[in-house]
Amino acid sequence: MNEFDLIQRLTSSLPTNQSVVTGPGDDCAVLDLGLPDRLLLFKTDAVVQGVHFTAETDPEKIGSKALARCLSDIAAMAGTPNSALITLGLPREYDPAFVEKIYSGMSRMAKRYDVAIVGGETTTNPGGILISIAVLGTVARGKAVLRSGAKPGDALFVTGELGDSIAGKHLDFEPRLAEARWLADNFSLHSMIDLSDGLAGDLRHIVKASGVAAELHSASIPISRSARLAAKAEGSAKSPLLAALTDGEDFELLFTVASRDAVPLVDAWKKQFPKTKLTCVGKIVAGEGVTIRSEKGVLNLSAHGYEHFS
Amino acid sequence: MNEFDLIQRLTSSLPTNQSVVTGPGDDCAVLDLGLPDRLLLFKTDAVVQGVHFTAETDPEKIGSKALARCLSDIAAMAGTPNSALITLGLPREYDPAFVEKIYSGMSRMAKRYDVAIVGGETTTNPGGILISIAVLGTVARGKAVLRSGAKPGDALFVTGELGDSIAGKHLDFEPRLAEARWLADNFSLHSMIDLSDGLAGDLRHIVKASGVAAELHSASIPISRSARLAAKAEGSAKSPLLAALTDGEDFELLFTVASRDAVPLVDAWKKQFPKTKLTCVGKIVAGEGVTIRSEKGVLNLSAHGYEHFS
Repeated sequence: MNEFDLIQRLTSSLPTNQSVVTGPGDDCAVLDLGLPDRLLLFKTDAVVQGVHFTAETDPEKIGSKALARCLSDIAAMAGTPNSALITLGLPREYDPAFVEKIYSGMSRMAKRYDVAIVGGETTTNPGGILISIAVLGTVARGKAVLRSGAKPGDALFVTGELGDSIAGKHLDFEPRLAEARWLADNFSLHSMIDLSDGLAGDLRHIVKASGVAAELHSASIPISRSARLAAKAEGSAKSPLLAALTDGEDFELLFTVASRDAVPLVDAWKKQFPKTKLTCVGKIVAGEGVTIRSEKGVLNLSAHGYEHFS
Repeated sequence: MNEFDLIQRLTSSLPTNQSVVTGPGDDCAVLDLGLPDRLLLFKTDAVVQGVHFTAETDPEKIGSKALARCLSDIAAMAGTPNSALITLGLPREYDPAFVEKIYSGMSRMAKRYDVAIVGGETTTNPGGILISIAVLGTVARGKAVLRSGAKPGDALFVTGELGDSIAGKHLDFEPRLAEARWLADNFSLHSMIDLSDGLAGDLRHIVKASGVAAELHSASIPISRSARLAAKAEGSAKSPLLAALTDGEDFELLFTVASRDAVPLVDAWKKQFPKTKLTCVGKIVAGEGVTIRSEKGVLNLSAHGYEHFS
């Protein structure tokens, strides 16, 4: 049984209650606890030594990344983060200075977005350092953007550039909180997700949750300069385009709007965020799966790369 | 640097914001997000293979305990749990059936207290299974009971019996949610904590947070039958009394009320919870530290045992 099958089984019959608006399966859970104007967002995420970082990684960046990953999920719902709890697993032998730097990176990221760190738990974790963070946030009623609202005909947009992760962006990124709130305040977003698994993988989450298909246009994908350089330097088997589609950890926003909103959106965005790219990379259509259209024709795209039509 | 010193340093300058009513250092964080009648409670806790359980432990009990520990912290604030997120760290090789049973134990515990499990995260944790749970709850405004409100003259009460942990209670207990809410609804509780470190240790948290001292009466400590039997069977160096005071993981409530409330409280409790003991084990006095009075005299009590007066 692979990890996805296991998660599927574990989460298929979890207990729920009256306050749950959106349970497992989106970027955050959405809860209605009776706040007059807002819903709550609730999210957890973990990074682990030997999996997400090593003893050689800059500890301040480990801390800031650990929190920023959660904040990016709050952004993907068009929410505002409020507070965080930290679970810190430490091996029996550890360097206190390293751990303090993890905390200082986390604190700096928290301060930047007015997130309170309100407690946590320290425990022994024999295999290495593990940081699990739970974040609580809020979103205006009616403004939470789910993965499941994409409609055939929608235009598909992505912020920023893709493929920088390999050059270090995965450790050093800003969650797109302001951008997401501005988008939700000014346009009717049909669906949104943050890019953690790569555009190819995360777009599949949107189309699956929405019961639709997506067509990407290869010429439109905003490939970063470092992805182009990396592919060249390594004489890589992966083209810059494929790296941009599948490398993951870009932490950009991927979202859909009705096609009539596409042009006004691009115009307004340029005025609001002149330094950040916004690119229409394709459209939502009826059906299932993700395809990519290039000069060479149309290919199916899995989370990991191209597939020949079967 | 020991763990307590490290936590002290890590939590000494954490970012806060306007919504924080009570930050790190109590059983839960308390947040004011603008609910008209309630405050939010936010708590995280973790259990780790090789530290809190082994591969031989009943996996359903691992799951129910992992959640019940958090619920016990919500009880210690006189709150009501609402929802939980699960972070599950798994080694590269694991038994899916074992993991499913952890989840089923957790789900059963959640259902019993109407707690929704609204999501989570599965990650690789090379050293073994780790379960980190974040719980969100609520408490009526004005009813959250902190560790810091004990006053000289208060009577000190404990629910249930102490010392059963070694006989398996640490894996199989019910959080005292109903009892705590009833107490807070009907009496003015000055301070409260749940017993995870043992009465000797957790009482120190109350007296430290409140800036007071406590005197226990050794003859009043409600020592469980299994603690008496265990001490006898092992020919243990630890007396049953010391085991009851220091073994930890009783998950009973320890709280203080004004002395004038002590008798009415005991009377009302007997009617409300006839099957559960409630015992006055001592009183709060001015000063600092914890002492215990027996026929042999008065001894200082640390978290781990008796100390001679220095």
